Amino acid sequence: MQMNPNRDTQLCMSLSGRPGNFGLRFHNHLYEQLGLNFYYKAFSSQDLPGAVGGIRALGIRGCGVSMPFKEACIALVDELDASAEAIQSINTIVNTNGHLKAYNTDYIAIAQLLDTHQVPKESTFALRGSGGMAKAVASALRDGGYKNGLIVARNERAGRALAQSLGYSWQAELGGQRPQMLINVTPIGMNGGPEADQLAFDPEAIAAAETVFDVVAIPSETPLIVRGRAEGKRVITGLEVIAIQALEQFVLYTGVRPTDEQFQKAVAFARG
Amino acid sequence: MQMNPNRDTQLCMSLSGRPGNFGLRFHNHLYEQLGLNFYYKAFSSQDLPGAVGGIRALGIRGCGVSMPFKEACIALVDELDASAEAIQSINTIVNTNGHLKAYNTDYIAIAQLLDTHQVPKESTFALRGSGGMAKAVASALRDGGYKNGLIVARNERAGRALAQSLGYSWQAELGGQRPQMLINVTPIGMNGGPEADQLAFDPEAIAAAETVFDVVAIPSETPLIVRGRAEGKRVITGLEVIAIQALEQFVLYTGVRPTDEQFQKAVAFARG
Repeated sequence: MQMNPNRDTQLCMSLSGRPGNFGLRFHNHLYEQLGLNFYYKAFSSQDLPGAVGGIRALGIRGCGVSMPFKEACIALVDELDASAEAIQSINTIVNTNGHLKAYNTDYIAIAQLLDTHQVPKESTFALRGSGGMAKAVASALRDGGYKNGLIVARNERAGRALAQSLGYSWQAELGGQRPQMLINVTPIGMNGGPEADQLAFDPEAIAAAETVFDVVAIPSETPLIVRGRAEGKRVITGLEVIAIQALEQFVLYTGVRPTDEQFQKAVAFARG
Repeated sequence: MQMNPNRDTQLCMSLSGRPGNFGLRFHNHLYEQLGLNFYYKAFSSQDLPGAVGGIRALGIRGCGVSMPFKEACIALVDELDASAEAIQSINTIVNTNGHLKAYNTDYIAIAQLLDTHQVPKESTFALRGSGGMAKAVASALRDGGYKNGLIVARNERAGRALAQSLGYSWQAELGGQRPQMLINVTPIGMNGGPEADQLAFDPEAIAAAETVFDVVAIPSETPLIVRGRAEGKRVITGLEVIAIQALEQFVLYTGVRPTDEQFQKAVAFARG
């Protein structure tokens, strides 16, 4: 940690229903490593307008926004970056002299990961989920040129709406389909959840796929990822998503881009 | 500093027109020494209701309030402690599950200092000033049983109002009076101010006094204090006031009272 906070120290924060430790450890570690006079604090709140008003009134530099605030925050900021505008869901607020601009660095992270993992654009895919994060992932796929997509969601209304808005199809279950990329954007496989030990897709579908992508980050080795690895598939994990989205937040808040080595060390520290 | 902030770290803060370093260094040093999972941040704001709303919405545990917010904050809190009620001026907000109770630890510090320095109750005194801090000091004197007081203030309206509310007299200038205690509660002698090198009282009045008391803390060795010391007077400094008021805030926020040694070390660190 910054050893000598002073009156010029800038605060960044997160706002979520259930704060975790990853973000604050990631950001604070990098502040220390890079000698930046910042401090990062995790908050929850029952009063979103009051919390965002506080960010503005106190000059808090940046705020990570998690469930359940990603959509309700939109009405409280002054400007949406393209990453947030398209999907009407935000995860980052940058405060510049009281002007609040919102971004979606999940969207940015997903787009980067599809690129760095060299997932072929012509891949067919099935994305399971229909919430705010599903919107970010599906939008990044659409904007990345992935045209052959299926949204799998038990919630018909939300699933259909998401699929239609992006030109994909919808089904309540995957059924007999065998897409080349399987993407889980539900809590299946999440630590502490009711389906922590479940596979987000059938073993047959996994066997037939080339890529498995799970946004669940705790643990990042979900049953889906473990099975995908065992079968030699291309694997993209939720840890990669939360790490890259945190990195992009860090750059937006501080204007400084860490080296890849600094980034990797911060990820390792934040998990520890 | 706390080396491992986590999601349970509690935030305390200050709100002032021009944040200093003393409070944040004092509190953060004690958090570290006592192993308390707290962090202290100095803020300014152009939007007091938004800032206090943020304290409530974000669950910020405590807030020190300085100029120019000490009176305007009253309408924004839920309850006034007796220390703030009597003088209608606050310098501390304690947030317990969204309930904001305000205190005036300046008042508490003044009362303690008159006691520990054993200033005789029958002392006559002149207090120069008529602002929020003058109200806190004069009220502590009145409540401490100091009956023979004179408020000296160029601002007739504020000076008369303060004097009348407490049963003291008022004069625009000290003139030929020679009270036993001289108390400066104006910016005279303050670093960087237009009267930084001025004595708050005439040399003749200082020579005739037994006690000189200056609330100016930067520097704490004001011309008044320097001269009082040189003449062997009982001396009470602004550093004692800000240190004790900060200590009482610390106790209110954390529920922990440092030892005298820990307190003295924190004061030395905070000044450094």
